[in-house]
Amino acid sequence: MARKGQPERTPTSELRLSRASAARLSLYLRCLENWRRDGIETVSSRQIAATLGIQDAQVRKDLTPLGSLGQPGVGYRVAPLVAAIRQALGIDRTWVAVLVGVGNLARALLRYQGFRQQGFHIAALFDSDASKVGQRVEGLEVLALGELPRKVRQSNAELGIITVPAEAAQGVADLLLEAGIRGVLNFAPAVLRLPPAVRLVNVDLTIQLEQLAFQVQMGGSD
Amino acid sequence: MARKGQPERTPTSELRLSRASAARLSLYLRCLENWRRDGIETVSSRQIAATLGIQDAQVRKDLTPLGSLGQPGVGYRVAPLVAAIRQALGIDRTWVAVLVGVGNLARALLRYQGFRQQGFHIAALFDSDASKVGQRVEGLEVLALGELPRKVRQSNAELGIITVPAEAAQGVADLLLEAGIRGVLNFAPAVLRLPPAVRLVNVDLTIQLEQLAFQVQMGGSD
Repeated sequence: MARKGQPERTPTSELRLSRASAARLSLYLRCLENWRRDGIETVSSRQIAATLGIQDAQVRKDLTPLGSLGQPGVGYRVAPLVAAIRQALGIDRTWVAVLVGVGNLARALLRYQGFRQQGFHIAALFDSDASKVGQRVEGLEVLALGELPRKVRQSNAELGIITVPAEAAQGVADLLLEAGIRGVLNFAPAVLRLPPAVRLVNVDLTIQLEQLAFQVQMGGSD
Repeated sequence: MARKGQPERTPTSELRLSRASAARLSLYLRCLENWRRDGIETVSSRQIAATLGIQDAQVRKDLTPLGSLGQPGVGYRVAPLVAAIRQALGIDRTWVAVLVGVGNLARALLRYQGFRQQGFHIAALFDSDASKVGQRVEGLEVLALGELPRKVRQSNAELGIITVPAEAAQGVADLLLEAGIRGVLNFAPAVLRLPPAVRLVNVDLTIQLEQLAFQVQMGGSD
């Protein structure tokens, strides 16, 4: 929301994107990065829209607040558009995260190239299981939970990734919160309560599968 | 959409939930199942709303189409409400899935209790890597992709889970589609093109993390 009497800001922080628009920008970014890898230099909003199966006008509307990036008859140049979207989403810098709960999902996330490519750096791993503490996983030592506050401070971590079982998730979230973490990516199938200042994104894999089943079922009766 | 002259349907398939409502029902289900495990027998819409941080009226509106389940002054009985939501979501039965791409994420999903608890059964694993074929992972043998059509038929699988690298995802999706799969849960950071009759849910972990970063950034300038 724009407030009166506020000091001038950089264009990025002035930009107030809706969450829905931000989610679409992430998708555009994924397409654009693929095209850039393939050596494609310009694209039209129509190409982005067709690839994602959405409306051309929606793409143009989402990209307009990013500045005059499109040229009539030419389209958008891919590289500057990638840079503008990254800036708008706040991922034109490195974000440091810590991860709590070193199981298979954590290993999968640590090996996942996408995080690193997008500037997310997992700085430390924690587990409450004493037998895991001291082990090295993907080049990182697993630390005891007691080390969390110090390590978060030391690494300037702002994000926390929770991959513990459901019953342990709220306790871990509280720990992350106390350590000064500002955003939590929660994979535990638990409903976490966090103060509004701490942002929360839940990735409940069962819910995703339930939603798929629901859509298949509904599709069958269309 | 209701159509004229259609034969009478069972209440479940007559119920036309929006996707947003279905997504909330999944969340209510998660809360209710926790409460049921804790031995709680009745809840109010207010308790569900407070736990999830949403409006009381929204919860009541989502639950109304499920039938007269709430009682004034008493609230909802947990067990029948769980059953009604499962029926509305189409998960009051087993859904059989096959999984393609046996890496860490696949291992995490196979160990994930939530899928089994909600009636999702992963019947077969596939990988294009000959060195993985024949291995046993969580009790299942890894099969070659060539076996996919036969195995999908044999197991009556309706859902496919894709956990291959991005560049292999469309090829795998095409294979699943040809084998008769009706819904795809895609973890590959790729934009898949599928005919509208095949339902697609994407779980792009990078997008989730980007959205979290975006929210943290925006939160900071509120």
